[in-house]
Amino acid sequence: MEFRGSDILSVDQFQKEDLRVLFDMAAQMEVYATRQKVTRVLEGAVLANLFFEPSTRSRVSFGAAFNRLGGEVRDTTGFTFSSMAKGESIHDTSRVISGYSDMMVVRHPEEGAVKQFADATNIPVINGGDGPGEHPTQALLDLYTVMKEHGNNLENIDGLSIAMIGDLKYGRTVHSLAKLLSLFDDLFFTFISPKQLRMPREIVERIRGRKHRIRETENLEEGVKDADIVYMTRIQEERFKTKKEFARHRGRYSVDRQFYENHCKDGTILMHPLPIDNRPGAQEFNDALHGHPKLAVYRQTDNGIPIRMALFALVLDVADKVHDTAKDALWYHPERIDSD
Amino acid sequence: MEFRGSDILSVDQFQKEDLRVLFDMAAQMEVYATRQKVTRVLEGAVLANLFFEPSTRSRVSFGAAFNRLGGEVRDTTGFTFSSMAKGESIHDTSRVISGYSDMMVVRHPEEGAVKQFADATNIPVINGGDGPGEHPTQALLDLYTVMKEHGNNLENIDGLSIAMIGDLKYGRTVHSLAKLLSLFDDLFFTFISPKQLRMPREIVERIRGRKHRIRETENLEEGVKDADIVYMTRIQEERFKTKKEFARHRGRYSVDRQFYENHCKDGTILMHPLPIDNRPGAQEFNDALHGHPKLAVYRQTDNGIPIRMALFALVLDVADKVHDTAKDALWYHPERIDSD
Amino acid sequence: MEFRGSDILSVDQFQKEDLRVLFDMAAQMEVYATRQKVTRVLEGAVLANLFFEPSTRSRVSFGAAFNRLGGEVRDTTGFTFSSMAKGESIHDTSRVISGYSDMMVVRHPEEGAVKQFADATNIPVINGGDGPGEHPTQALLDLYTVMKEHGNNLENIDGLSIAMIGDLKYGRTVHSLAKLLSLFDDLFFTFISPKQLRMPREIVERIRGRKHRIRETENLEEGVKDADIVYMTRIQEERFKTKKEFARHRGRYSVDRQFYENHCKDGTILMHPLPIDNRPGAQEFNDALHGHPKLAVYRQTDNGIPIRMALFALVLDVADKVHDTAKDALWYHPERIDSD
Repeated sequence: MEFRGSDILSVDQFQKEDLRVLFDMAAQMEVYATRQKVTRVLEGAVLANLFFEPSTRSRVSFGAAFNRLGGEVRDTTGFTFSSMAKGESIHDTSRVISGYSDMMVVRHPEEGAVKQFADATNIPVINGGDGPGEHPTQALLDLYTVMKEHGNNLENIDGLSIAMIGDLKYGRTVHSLAKLLSLFDDLFFTFISPKQLRMPREIVERIRGRKHRIRETENLEEGVKDADIVYMTRIQEERFKTKKEFARHRGRYSVDRQFYENHCKDGTILMHPLPIDNRPGAQEFNDALHGHPKLAVYRQTDNGIPIRMALFALVLDVADKVHDTAKDALWYHPERIDSD
Repeated sequence: MEFRGSDILSVDQFQKEDLRVLFDMAAQMEVYATRQKVTRVLEGAVLANLFFEPSTRSRVSFGAAFNRLGGEVRDTTGFTFSSMAKGESIHDTSRVISGYSDMMVVRHPEEGAVKQFADATNIPVINGGDGPGEHPTQALLDLYTVMKEHGNNLENIDGLSIAMIGDLKYGRTVHSLAKLLSLFDDLFFTFISPKQLRMPREIVERIRGRKHRIRETENLEEGVKDADIVYMTRIQEERFKTKKEFARHRGRYSVDRQFYENHCKDGTILMHPLPIDNRPGAQEFNDALHGHPKLAVYRQTDNGIPIRMALFALVLDVADKVHDTAKDALWYHPERIDSD
Repeated sequence: MEFRGSDILSVDQFQKEDLRVLFDMAAQMEVYATRQKVTRVLEGAVLANLFFEPSTRSRVSFGAAFNRLGGEVRDTTGFTFSSMAKGESIHDTSRVISGYSDMMVVRHPEEGAVKQFADATNIPVINGGDGPGEHPTQALLDLYTVMKEHGNNLENIDGLSIAMIGDLKYGRTVHSLAKLLSLFDDLFFTFISPKQLRMPREIVERIRGRKHRIRETENLEEGVKDADIVYMTRIQEERFKTKKEFARHRGRYSVDRQFYENHCKDGTILMHPLPIDNRPGAQEFNDALHGHPKLAVYRQTDNGIPIRMALFALVLDVADKVHDTAKDALWYHPERIDSD
């Protein structure tokens, strides 16, 4: 794909070669993301960070990534623009904001809405999540994490065994990550979920079409055995017809240190798109795992910054100029962010 | 007027010579507004962008304009400051925020409230709309658009024929624009509205006092004939006593390509302060006009950036320093924002 | 204390020597806070300004202070993070945001919550107010104001007579300020409040333990006599069981010009953490005091900027680099902010 000036709407835009370009760029961004260096390449640029549904972390992550490149961020939050409440079309909202900004990130509760924003303007638009649709930057940072946790080499993804757990039917995160992974060779997917939350057939078929192996099970113990990656997700209440049915599944898949030691092979990486439901009875990963060297969930969210910086830099075509303005970061930064 | 350190509260502050100064400055800002160049003249300055009622686009426009000059923006949204809910006076709110910022933009639902903010501080305050009162920067960008669409020459405004359409009684936009236009010579105003939404008599009298011609009509076809500018506005539900009465007027004035070809003279410019009500039965300008060379509504909203930049630069007295820090913008920007 | 990399959670962290370091730094910040100079020492740094309850002024003050050092600010407002509503722990929220930012300011309605944020990360966290708990930067700017109003010399605080007025039971502001003041020598505290809103015994004991004199009274006239500082606070409705009881106390302590002339000694400084309840029947300080040379409330809120800048600079360890990037502020700034 051509990154320059492109909208980033779906993981389907990415071929393996594009991932290589993106991840190489992200690797170059780490020095800024970890506050060793400062770059000002986007000084003077303005990001319109439009969040039509609440997603504080994604909003702050996109905004901070743009700031780290030297750019400014104008945020909007809340479902309705005052103008959209008055009947303004997405076309007009998008076109108006395009005149104020160099790029838009749009989060919207309705599938397809972000594409409408993109269609109305030549300013690049990044999909920050469109309801049950896509959230491509999440899948990209997930895959980047898989790579970094395995020798920081894209070739090492071939042959991995990946267990995906939880709500595989509605979870857009696992759908997008599975699609990206399927670009690699010889993977072994294990899909662990209640029967009514199984991975959609079209995604299973796509993966099979790329000659990967697939196993589906409801059993966590059995499923995680031999997995290189355990990718856990939360089971969401709103997917069930009755509270009783939800209660039956909630907390069904939960991993703690004991479980890890008993059932996971040495070196299994634990991932989760967050948030973890930390309330009693859920706790997909429990607090006792904090500090476990293979719990990658915080490294995973941290990776959102270099990935989003890389996307901004590539789409705004400043990849070769990022380092020209580089200087040392002058302020205190802890060696480790984690306190445990 | 003296721009330096002034509050910008009303279009009544502007004489023709002031408009010339402002528009000359705005013209110098276009190179930054269109991302060919970057200026950092306000680097280190802080704008307090206080929106006590929702107006996402105005808020983002003011903020982005300040950013384009190199300044930082602290936003507040929502009707009540937590402190105002506890009985704090406007005087105190204004004075407190003045200690944090170099300039305030204030949007408030009550007429006169922004003046109270301005009275409480020597920090410059710009009126971002005070309910039924004023919204001077909208009128200034409207007039700037009229000028740019007519040879980019202020002299060319003399003699124009302007049709204003819709809710002329309550629409502060048309009031303010009519006042500014009346500073020029020999205009022909056509006011097209339902009888109960006619232009207020005091504005009609002011215009007549400046020797312009005026025609008032309810008939769109008749009214737009020979107009150089068609300035359309929406008819707002809250102005009518009953839904039935509103329904009678809603969508009464709607222009599409067919209508334009049948009733407008060649070259008639279509303007609208936005948002357009795009729902069926309204559509003051319908979607089929997208891409029409004379549909100026998006150029109009884009003009908000150079106009607001120019006001900031003049009031903060950096007009002669703006270009000292200019450098090339390094990132991708599409040649045309419009996608159609 | 060691400022570098520290969390600022409580006034109890500060010894007299720390105050000297902080106030020296704040004094160096005044030139930036008053827009004579610009510093860019934190250019590239990102502050996460997390407000889980509304406090517009504190939020804007922290944000503007970070901007004045050249840093960027990502704001969040509203009680719930979308993710916390889904059961995310404070640990995870804090850890996630830590990956996006160099520092966090956290305001939270629950006592102790900010400490939980701090415990979850090595990124420095500043307490922006945790319910009935602490709001250390308010007490620090209050004390800085006391010093500046008395010859700008920390030694001059010894021997002062301070009257604290209003809700002394629940007002965290007076608790924290009293604790800080008690580090000095030979003070005379007068606590003026209704009986049921008296200063908590443990604070009285702490002050007594430092050999200061204390007087408690319900009588304003008697209490303010000979005071060097009158520190007024509002009486808050939510502290009373019945509206009737509240009505009996509201407006009980109110100072106007007449009262000042009749009861205060020459030179008595009037302070208030703001907001003042300006509604009839309250008005702790009334509007007629505007412009009075000893009304220090606006200088007090202005002092929030240099104090917060100083804290940021010390904690992020750039104190010795602040001036390296200093340049002249180019834009208009009024000589006096106050309009009266």
